[in-house]
Amino acid sequence: MSNPSQASVRATSSGIEVEVVYGPGSHGTLGEPGSYPFTRGPYPTMYRGRTWTMRQYAGFGTARETNQRFKALLAAGQTGLSVAFDLPTQMGLDSDSPMAAGEVGKVGVAIDNLDDMRTLLDGLPLGEVTTSMTINATAPILLLLYQLVAEEQGVPPERIRGTVQNDILKEYIARGTYIYPPAASMRLVTDLFAYCSKELRSWNTISISGYHIREAGATAAQELAFTLANGIAYVKAAVDAGMDVNSFGPRLSFFWNSHNHLFEEAAKFRAARRLWATIMKERFGATDRAAQRMRFHTQTAGSTLTAQQPENNIVRTALQAVAATLGGTQSLHTNAFDEALGLPTQRSATIALRTQQILAAESGVTDTVDPLAGSYYVESLTDSLEEVAIRLIDETDRLGGAVAAIEQGFPQGEIEEAAYRASLRIESGEDTVVGVNRYADDVGAGVEPLEVDPEVELQQRDRVIRFRAGRDPVAVEGTLGELEAAARGGGNLMYPMKAALVADATLGEVSDALRRVFGVHRPR
Amino acid sequence: MSNPSQASVRATSSGIEVEVVYGPGSHGTLGEPGSYPFTRGPYPTMYRGRTWTMRQYAGFGTARETNQRFKALLAAGQTGLSVAFDLPTQMGLDSDSPMAAGEVGKVGVAIDNLDDMRTLLDGLPLGEVTTSMTINATAPILLLLYQLVAEEQGVPPERIRGTVQNDILKEYIARGTYIYPPAASMRLVTDLFAYCSKELRSWNTISISGYHIREAGATAAQELAFTLANGIAYVKAAVDAGMDVNSFGPRLSFFWNSHNHLFEEAAKFRAARRLWATIMKERFGATDRAAQRMRFHTQTAGSTLTAQQPENNIVRTALQAVAATLGGTQSLHTNAFDEALGLPTQRSATIALRTQQILAAESGVTDTVDPLAGSYYVESLTDSLEEVAIRLIDETDRLGGAVAAIEQGFPQGEIEEAAYRASLRIESGEDTVVGVNRYADDVGAGVEPLEVDPEVELQQRDRVIRFRAGRDPVAVEGTLGELEAAARGGGNLMYPMKAALVADATLGEVSDALRRVFGVHRPR
Repeated sequence: MSNPSQASVRATSSGIEVEVVYGPGSHGTLGEPGSYPFTRGPYPTMYRGRTWTMRQYAGFGTARETNQRFKALLAAGQTGLSVAFDLPTQMGLDSDSPMAAGEVGKVGVAIDNLDDMRTLLDGLPLGEVTTSMTINATAPILLLLYQLVAEEQGVPPERIRGTVQNDILKEYIARGTYIYPPAASMRLVTDLFAYCSKELRSWNTISISGYHIREAGATAAQELAFTLANGIAYVKAAVDAGMDVNSFGPRLSFFWNSHNHLFEEAAKFRAARRLWATIMKERFGATDRAAQRMRFHTQTAGSTLTAQQPENNIVRTALQAVAATLGGTQSLHTNAFDEALGLPTQRSATIALRTQQILAAESGVTDTVDPLAGSYYVESLTDSLEEVAIRLIDETDRLGGAVAAIEQGFPQGEIEEAAYRASLRIESGEDTVVGVNRYADDVGAGVEPLEVDPEVELQQRDRVIRFRAGRDPVAVEGTLGELEAAARGGGNLMYPMKAALVADATLGEVSDALRRVFGVHRPR
Repeated sequence: MSNPSQASVRATSSGIEVEVVYGPGSHGTLGEPGSYPFTRGPYPTMYRGRTWTMRQYAGFGTARETNQRFKALLAAGQTGLSVAFDLPTQMGLDSDSPMAAGEVGKVGVAIDNLDDMRTLLDGLPLGEVTTSMTINATAPILLLLYQLVAEEQGVPPERIRGTVQNDILKEYIARGTYIYPPAASMRLVTDLFAYCSKELRSWNTISISGYHIREAGATAAQELAFTLANGIAYVKAAVDAGMDVNSFGPRLSFFWNSHNHLFEEAAKFRAARRLWATIMKERFGATDRAAQRMRFHTQTAGSTLTAQQPENNIVRTALQAVAATLGGTQSLHTNAFDEALGLPTQRSATIALRTQQILAAESGVTDTVDPLAGSYYVESLTDSLEEVAIRLIDETDRLGGAVAAIEQGFPQGEIEEAAYRASLRIESGEDTVVGVNRYADDVGAGVEPLEVDPEVELQQRDRVIRFRAGRDPVAVEGTLGELEAAARGGGNLMYPMKAALVADATLGEVSDALRRVFGVHRPR
C-alpha cells in the first residue's frame, strides 16, 4: 500500500470509502456503556470490572486427549473452555458409521455418548468454568450430555454455565454442518431455548454466529447483516412458539469474527450492539435491558492465516485481538499461528493464549471502557456499517426473513460475490497478503503441526461398539421410540431426548430417530 | 489485571489516572494534519501519501557482515537503512585500542576509518535509500565518512539523505556514550548543524532521542519532557551560535520509544508534535512550517522484551508498532523477538520486518490520517501528557535549561525514581509481565541468538593496523594538527575533521585530537 498513486481511494471490506481525514461529525446515538443502545458496551465498567474470558477453542482425537489439552490450557491461565467437535459428532453420526470414516477425531473431539462426555469433562471444575460448545445440528444432544455429566459432578443447574452454538441458519449459509431441513431445525433451536429457560437458566442458548459467514468471504457489513437477520429469525420463531422475549432474550449470545481491518472491525462490534438493541426493542418490544444488550464471543480470522511464513500469523492474530477487545468482546479465541498447516500444537496454543494475556495485562486496553468512542473515524465507520447492514436486513425482510432468504439463496449469493471480489483483489495485487503475493521467500519455519493418530478412529469405533453392547436394549429402543413419536407430534423434544441419552442411546441413534421424522436437507 | 478489586484505580506510566469511561470534553487545539500545531500529523495526507519508512536498526561484527545483512533486509522489503555501531566506534576508540578489547563488533559494527565505511556501504544505493546512524559523540566523524563514500559513489550532496543521532545530551542523562564535557559536545552538535545547512541540506542533523531515556525507566511524560528540553537546548545553542531557526529547524528530527500502553503511547506522539510546534513558534519565533513540525523515528521498547517465552515478544512488538503508527511515526524499527537473548538472527530480523509490512499492508492503519482523533480518551490523554510534560520542562527551565539541569542531575534523578517505582510494581505483582511474574512456565523455545565470532575482533585489529601502515603519515599528522588547532580556536570543526579523514586519519585519532583539547567528561 506504499504506492502513492493508491492514495486517491481506499475502501474497507464493506465497500465503505475511507476519507483521508475525518473531522468532528454528527454521529449516531452513543449513550453510556451499559445503557441502551449499548454502542459503548453491554456493561457500565466493562474490563475495569472483569477482563474478557480467554476461551481457546480446542478439541482433537479422543475425549481423553482433549481433556488433557483443556487441563493444560487452564493451567496456563485460560479462563473458559471451548470444545471443538469432529465432523461426525457435528453431523449426528456415531464414530463407527461408514459415513464417519476418515473424519473421527480429526477437526475436533469425537463424542458418541454419555461415556465420552464423562471422559471429556473428567476432573474439570464445571461449577466454576464456563464452557462453549461449537455444535449446531446436534446441539440439543451435546447440551444434554453436558448437563448430565455436570449433574453427576453435583453442580446445581443454575451453576451450569456456558454456550451452545445452536445457530443452524448460518450452517445453511456458510458452514454446511446441517442435518434436517430448516423448519425442523428451527424447531430444535426453539425447543432448546424453551428447555433452558426452565431447566438451565444460566446457559446461553445460542451463539448467533457471524464468524463462519465472514470466513466464507463475507464483508464486515454482510457478516453483521446476515447474522442479525438470523438472530431476528430465531427471536421470531421463539415468540411465535409463545415464548416471552424478555425471558429468553437475555440468554441469546453472538459470535463474531475479528478480521484484519483494525478500525472497521472495532466499529463493527459497536454497530452490532446498537443494531441488536434497536431490533430487540423496536421490533420485538423487549423491555428488559438484559434482552436488549448484545454479549458476544470473538475469534480472530482463521481465513487470514497463511501457511507461508507462519510466524506472521502471530502478528495478524495479535492485531485482530486488539480489534476484538477495542470492540468490547466478552470472550475471545486467538488462533494459533500454525492453524493454516494443521492442528495447533501445545506450543502454538500457548503462544495464542499468551497473546491475550499480554493484551489484557500489559497493553492498557482494559483501562477504560470503549476507548475509541468519539474518534471521528471510528464513529463514522460505526454509522456507515450500520447503514449498510440495515439495507441488507431490509432486503432480507422483503424476501420473507432469513429462513426464506436462505432458501432463495440470497445471503449465499451475496457472500459468494464478495468472496470472489476479494480473491480478485489478492490475485491482482491490489490487496497485499504478506508472504503470499508480496514479500514471499523460501525460508521455512520448521513448523510441525499436530497430527491425529489414525489409531484414534479405530479405538473410538471399538469404544462405541462396546458401549452399545453394555446397555439395556429395551430401554434404548423404548426411549428412542418416544423421541420419534414426540418429533411427529408437537412437544418439546429436549425431554424425550434426555431420557434416551440417560438410557445410553448414542448421538447417532438419537439423530437417526429425528432423521426418520424430519428427513435430511439437500442444498439446491 | 483481571482482579475486580483493581477496578477502582488505574493509572498510566506517567501517573495519569485513567477514568472508567470518557465522554466528550473540551480538548486542546487539534487543527488539521499538516498544519500548526501538527497534533494530527506533520503532513496533510500522512500514510495515504506514503507509508512510514521501515528502518530496522542493524549492525554487528565487521563492515562486510553488516553490509550483507543490509542487503538481505532491503531484499526483504525494508525501505531505509539504520546502522548500529559497536561501543568502541561510539566512544571514539579504534578497534586496536586496549580500551576496545572485548567490545569490537559486539553491539554493532566496527568502523575505524574510511575503508571500513566503504565496505559497509558497498553496493548500497546511497542516492535512493535514506540511512540513519545511531552515533552521538562521534557523529561528526561518521557523517563525514558517509558523505565521503557517497561522493565516491557519485551521489550529489542534495541526494545524500539520512539522519545522525547526534543527541549528546541524552547520553549524559541515560545512555552513557559521551566523550567530552557538555559544553564541547554542544559545540560539535551545532558545528554539525551549521555544516549540514551548507553542505548536506537534505540531511537530518540530529535525532533528538527519547528512546534511551524511556529505556532507562522514564515514564511517557518524562520521555516527552526531557527530550523536548534537550531539543530546546540544541535550538538555543544553534541560535546563540548565530544560526537562523528557520534554516536549521526543518532538519531537526526526533526519536521516540513506543512502549506498552497502546493509548498513552499514541497520545504521547500527538502531544509531542503539539508541544514542539508551540515551542518552536512561541519560544524561538520559527515561522517556517517545516521548522515547526516534528518528524520522528520510533523504535518499539526493547526494555519490555523478555528472555522468557521469547515468542511473546512478537506480540509485544506488534502492539507497540500499532501505537507508533497510530501516533503518525515517519519511520519505525520493530524489535526482533530474540533481542533479550542476543543479537537478532536473520529469521528473527525478518519476522520483525514482516510485522511492519503486515501492519502497513493488511491492517488498514494507513487508510486515514490520525485515526484516533476525537476519541474522548485519547484526546484526554494527549492533553494530560502535555500538561505533565510542560511542568517538567518548566522545572528544567528554572534550573537553567537542559545542560544545567543535567549537570545538577535533575532528569537523571527523576528517571531513576520512576524506574525504581516501576520495578517495585513488577516485584509486587501490581504490574504483570507475562511469562515473568505471571504465567511463567519452563517451556523453552529453542531460540539460538546470533553470536559474534571472537575472531572478528582480531581481524578488525589487524585491519586498522594495516590501514595505518598504508597512508601518508605527514598528511595525517598535519591534518590532525589543524583539527586540534581549530578546536582550541573557534571555527567549525567539521571542515578540518573532513580533511583529516580524507588523509586517512582514523576515528580514534580524530577523537584523540579533540580529547587533547576538550578533555573527557567524568560523571559526578
